[in-house]
Amino acid sequence: MSKQILVLPGDGIGPEIMAEAVKVLELANEKYRLGFALSYDELGGAAVDKYGVPLADETLERARQADAILLGAVGGPKWDSIDPAIRPERGLLKIRSQLGLFGNLRPALLYPQLAAASSLKPEIVAGLDILIVRELTGGIYFGQPRESKVLDNGERMAYDTLPYSESEIRRIAKVGFDMARVRNKKLCSVDKANVLASSQLWRAVVEEVAKDYPDVELSHMYVDNAAMQLVRAPKQFDVIVTDNMFGDILSDEASMLTGSIGMLPSASLDADNKGMYEPCHGSAPDIAGKGIANPLATILSVSMLLRYSFAQVEAANAIEQAVSKVLDQGLRTGDIWSEGCRKVGTAEMGDAVVAAL
Amino acid sequence: MSKQILVLPGDGIGPEIMAEAVKVLELANEKYRLGFALSYDELGGAAVDKYGVPLADETLERARQADAILLGAVGGPKWDSIDPAIRPERGLLKIRSQLGLFGNLRPALLYPQLAAASSLKPEIVAGLDILIVRELTGGIYFGQPRESKVLDNGERMAYDTLPYSESEIRRIAKVGFDMARVRNKKLCSVDKANVLASSQLWRAVVEEVAKDYPDVELSHMYVDNAAMQLVRAPKQFDVIVTDNMFGDILSDEASMLTGSIGMLPSASLDADNKGMYEPCHGSAPDIAGKGIANPLATILSVSMLLRYSFAQVEAANAIEQAVSKVLDQGLRTGDIWSEGCRKVGTAEMGDAVVAAL
Ligand SMILES: CC(C)[C@H](C(=O)O)[C@@H](O)C(=O)O
Ligand SMILES: CC(C)[C@H](C(=O)O)[C@@H](O)C(=O)O
Repeated sequence: MSKQILVLPGDGIGPEIMAEAVKVLELANEKYRLGFALSYDELGGAAVDKYGVPLADETLERARQADAILLGAVGGPKWDSIDPAIRPERGLLKIRSQLGLFGNLRPALLYPQLAAASSLKPEIVAGLDILIVRELTGGIYFGQPRESKVLDNGERMAYDTLPYSESEIRRIAKVGFDMARVRNKKLCSVDKANVLASSQLWRAVVEEVAKDYPDVELSHMYVDNAAMQLVRAPKQFDVIVTDNMFGDILSDEASMLTGSIGMLPSASLDADNKGMYEPCHGSAPDIAGKGIANPLATILSVSMLLRYSFAQVEAANAIEQAVSKVLDQGLRTGDIWSEGCRKVGTAEMGDAVVAAL
Repeated sequence: MSKQILVLPGDGIGPEIMAEAVKVLELANEKYRLGFALSYDELGGAAVDKYGVPLADETLERARQADAILLGAVGGPKWDSIDPAIRPERGLLKIRSQLGLFGNLRPALLYPQLAAASSLKPEIVAGLDILIVRELTGGIYFGQPRESKVLDNGERMAYDTLPYSESEIRRIAKVGFDMARVRNKKLCSVDKANVLASSQLWRAVVEEVAKDYPDVELSHMYVDNAAMQLVRAPKQFDVIVTDNMFGDILSDEASMLTGSIGMLPSASLDADNKGMYEPCHGSAPDIAGKGIANPLATILSVSMLLRYSFAQVEAANAIEQAVSKVLDQGLRTGDIWSEGCRKVGTAEMGDAVVAAL
C-alpha cells in the first residue's frame, strides 16, 4: 500500500517554494522506491478563499488519513482584516491541535557556507547546532477560558488562560530527553517558574522525567535569561525544551542567530511520529510571486519528513547532502546571498538540488 | 522639606554595587543641593532573613512614604528552596504592584567605548539606542485565578491567567508614545494578536491612543518576530511598548545585544512619576562578595532617578558624563573588560565616577 503525503502549499511564497520541494520529494520517491502518493489541498488564506474557512473539514479529514503532511506557509495582508475566527493562522493552530501534533522540533543550525550571513560575530555562532523542542498543542495558545468582554464599569477587558497538565508536560519532556540522548546529551528546560504556577509544575514534571534519563544532563533556565543567553553564547545549548509561547519566541530568536532562517525546516509530531513538516519562516507576502524565495527550508522539511515519519535515513541524508552541495557550488537566493556567490531564483535553486540528488 | 530616598540594597552583589551608587548619590545631593534624605531597608532574600518575608509591611509603608526608591537586586540560591510564596522575587513583584509602578523603562544602549563587548557584529549594533517600555503591574504576572491542583483523574495541572483591561493598556501605551515623542518618534507595539485575546485588545487600544499622537509613527509586531528582528536589525527600533511577560523577555534580549548589561539602568514609574530605580542585571550570586561587580548600572539608575522623579536634568546629565569619562579613561570591571583596558573592582570604579563628578 502506498504512503499518503498531503501537500498544503498555503499562502504567499508557499506555492512557489512548495513546487521546488515537491520536485525533490518526487525524485526521492522514485529513486528510493518510497511508494509515496501525493495529494494536494489548501490551508490558511488559500483555504479561506476556496472553502470560506482556513481549515475545511474535508481537508482535516484528508490530513487525518495521510501518513505525513508537507506544509508551505500561511497568512498575509489579504486576510488581515477578516473575522479573527477565520484568520489563516487559525487553520494552522487547528490542524496542529486536531492532529495532536504536540512535539515541534525546530533546529537552529548554522550552515558553514553561510556563516557570514549571521548578524552575530563568527566566533559566537560558528558550528551552532541547537534543537528547540516546543510544546505545540497546549498552553496559552489553546487554554480555556479566553474571552473579551465589557466590565460593569464600561471598560473593555480580555484574558487568556495558560494551562498545563502533568501528562502534557511529561510527553514533551520525553521528546526533549529523547532528542538530547541522540545528540550531545544536554537538555535545557526553559520556563518562568519564579512567576508562573504553570511553570512550577513544568519544572517539577521535567525533573521527574529526568530520572529515566540519567545519561542526559538537565538544566533549567528562566525564559528571560534564555533570551539573553541565546544572544550571548548560543553554543552553550544542545536541546532546549519549552512551552508553546516561549518556544514560539525562542525558536524564532534562535533561528535568526544563524542568519539563515530561509534554510531551517521544522517538524510537528504526534505520539506515533506522524508529522507535519514546514519551513520555520513565514509566508513572506512582500516577495510572493516574484520567484525569488528560498526553497531550501521546505526542501529540508522533506528531508525531515523522510527521517522522522518514515525512518528513510538514506534518502533524508541524500537530500541534506544535495543542499550542502548546491551551497558549495555558490548558489544563493537573495536572502542568503553574499559577495562572490551566484544569485539564483526559487526554481533554479530547486532544480540545482534535484540535479545534485 | 527634604526628599526621602529609600535605599534597598537587596541580595547578592546588591549591597556592593549599592555602596558605590550611594557615594555618587550623596555627592550629587551635596553638589546640587538636592535636599535628599536617605534611609535604608531590606527587600528580597535579605528581607526574608530579617523579617521572614521578602517585603515586610513596614518596608512597604516606608516605600509608600518615600519620594523615590533605589534598589540593588534580589534573589539567590540561598532562598531557592524556600516556600514559593516567600521567595525573594515575590517581594519585588509585590512592591511593584503595591506601589502601582506600572511603567517600566528599560533602555538598551550601546556605549561606544564598549562596542567590542557585544556578541553582534559592530555594524549591526553601533549606535544602538532602544527604549523598551514594559507594562509592569498587570498581565500574567498578577492575573487571577492562578492555581495548581489535582484533577479527578489524579493528574496534576496548573494554570495562570493573562488579563488586560483597557485602562491598563491605555496608560502604558501613553508612556510609550510620550517616550517616543521625546526620542525618534517611532513606537513599535509588540503583541501576539494572531493568537491571544488579550493581545487583540492590546492592539485595538494602542491604535486608539495613537490618535492623540499623530507625530509618532506607530507599528505593530508579533512577539516572535520582534525577538528575531532584535537579533537581525535592532537599530530599526526606537521605542518598543509591550506587556509584562513579553517585556521581560525582550528587554533582556535587547540589553544583551549591547554586550553591556552591567551598564543598563531601569526605572519603574507610577502615574505621578514616583519611581523605583534599579539595574537591569540580576543579583549575580556567583560573584557576590568578591568586590568585582560592575556598579555602573546602579550608578546610572541614580541618574534616571534624578531625571524622572525629580527633573534634576543637570545632575542626571553630570552623572552620565562622569560614567562616560571613566570609560574613556579605560577603566573596566571584569564583565566589560577587553584587551588594552585597566581592570578595576567595584569600589575603584565607584570612586572613579565620584572623582569624575
Ligand atoms: C502563525 C502563528 C500562529 C505561529 C505560532 O505562533 O505558532 C507561528 O508564529 C509559528 O511559530 O509557527
Ligand atoms: C525576578 C523576576 C521576577 C523579574 C521579572 O520577571 O519581572 C526580573 O526578571 C525582571 O525582569 O525584573
